[in-house]
Amino acid sequence: MNGAALNFRRATRDDVPAIVRMLAHDPLGARREALVSPLPESYYQAFEAIDRDGNNELVVSELDGRIVGLLQITFIPYMTYRGSWRALIEGVRVDSEVRSRGIGRELFAWAIDRARQRGCHLVQLTSDKARPDAIRFYESLGFVASHEGLKLHLNHPSAEPEMTPNPSGQPAGDLRR
Amino acid sequence: MNGAALNFRRATRDDVPAIVRMLAHDPLGARREALVSPLPESYYQAFEAIDRDGNNELVVSELDGRIVGLLQITFIPYMTYRGSWRALIEGVRVDSEVRSRGIGRELFAWAIDRARQRGCHLVQLTSDKARPDAIRFYESLGFVASHEGLKLHLNHPSAEPEMTPNPSGQPAGDLRR
Repeated sequence: MNGAALNFRRATRDDVPAIVRMLAHDPLGARREALVSPLPESYYQAFEAIDRDGNNELVVSELDGRIVGLLQITFIPYMTYRGSWRALIEGVRVDSEVRSRGIGRELFAWAIDRARQRGCHLVQLTSDKARPDAIRFYESLGFVASHEGLKLHLNHPSAEPEMTPNPSGQPAGDLRR
Repeated sequence: MNGAALNFRRATRDDVPAIVRMLAHDPLGARREALVSPLPESYYQAFEAIDRDGNNELVVSELDGRIVGLLQITFIPYMTYRGSWRALIEGVRVDSEVRSRGIGRELFAWAIDRARQRGCHLVQLTSDKARPDAIRFYESLGFVASHEGLKLHLNHPSAEPEMTPNPSGQPAGDLRR
């Protein structure tokens, strides 16, 4: 990124539309997200839940003032490894217009450094097997695909009102349209 | 579990020695844990960090008053899927003396129900590829191994003092001896 002004910072509420745009401009994300105006309030509720949780950080990278990268880090305390902290990374996106310019690599270097600052001994993530390029990218950073990443979709959650990100009362399974 | 009194509850500080015993009595865990008396204080610090975090629950199952099962659930808000909550499950153990009695299955049924109560649309976990029986068990519950689970071990974290589970100042990499 010679010459370009790339920086990293915590996302703010004003970034939510740009973040949703990045999530929706993705082959898998396009099926899941709702890039409409106004944005569904559920996006803002999710942002607030992330923002007020000291163990979650939504990070954006800006190139000359425009958001071009995104990821979320969750810091989790565990009993294993004699009591230890891990960093879980999810929701990684880099703007397709600026791919192959090393932005993803710099974003991960920043996130891994942040995990070290928080005392984590391990950084982990899962990557869809339908994204072989992403998996090769993570392996090039030193990640080892030692585990299977297993997912169970719940179609009819009986959400507690204070926790649900979807106040319409529709089952969360509908979110996958 | 006909006739036996199996119940599920949040772990308490008094359970820490029994929990560490379960973590250490495991082919992979035996290399990582320190089952000594007194237990390293780092286990108690990790327990307190989990216990005071409203988005983390350390759950034990008891059979006739003895702890025979263990898992940790982390509830995480995400921007993806129009803003949504996921449950991450880690640190699953069932006492080898009571295996094949359906305790793991009941423990997971309990945890999945808890994820629904918290409004999660997805339950996810990673399972070491060296544990094929565990992966088959999760698949039998409906989990799909759609993702690679990638891990990066950090050897020399510069931990922030308030976050480190290891107040001795040794690098967390030493925890893997």
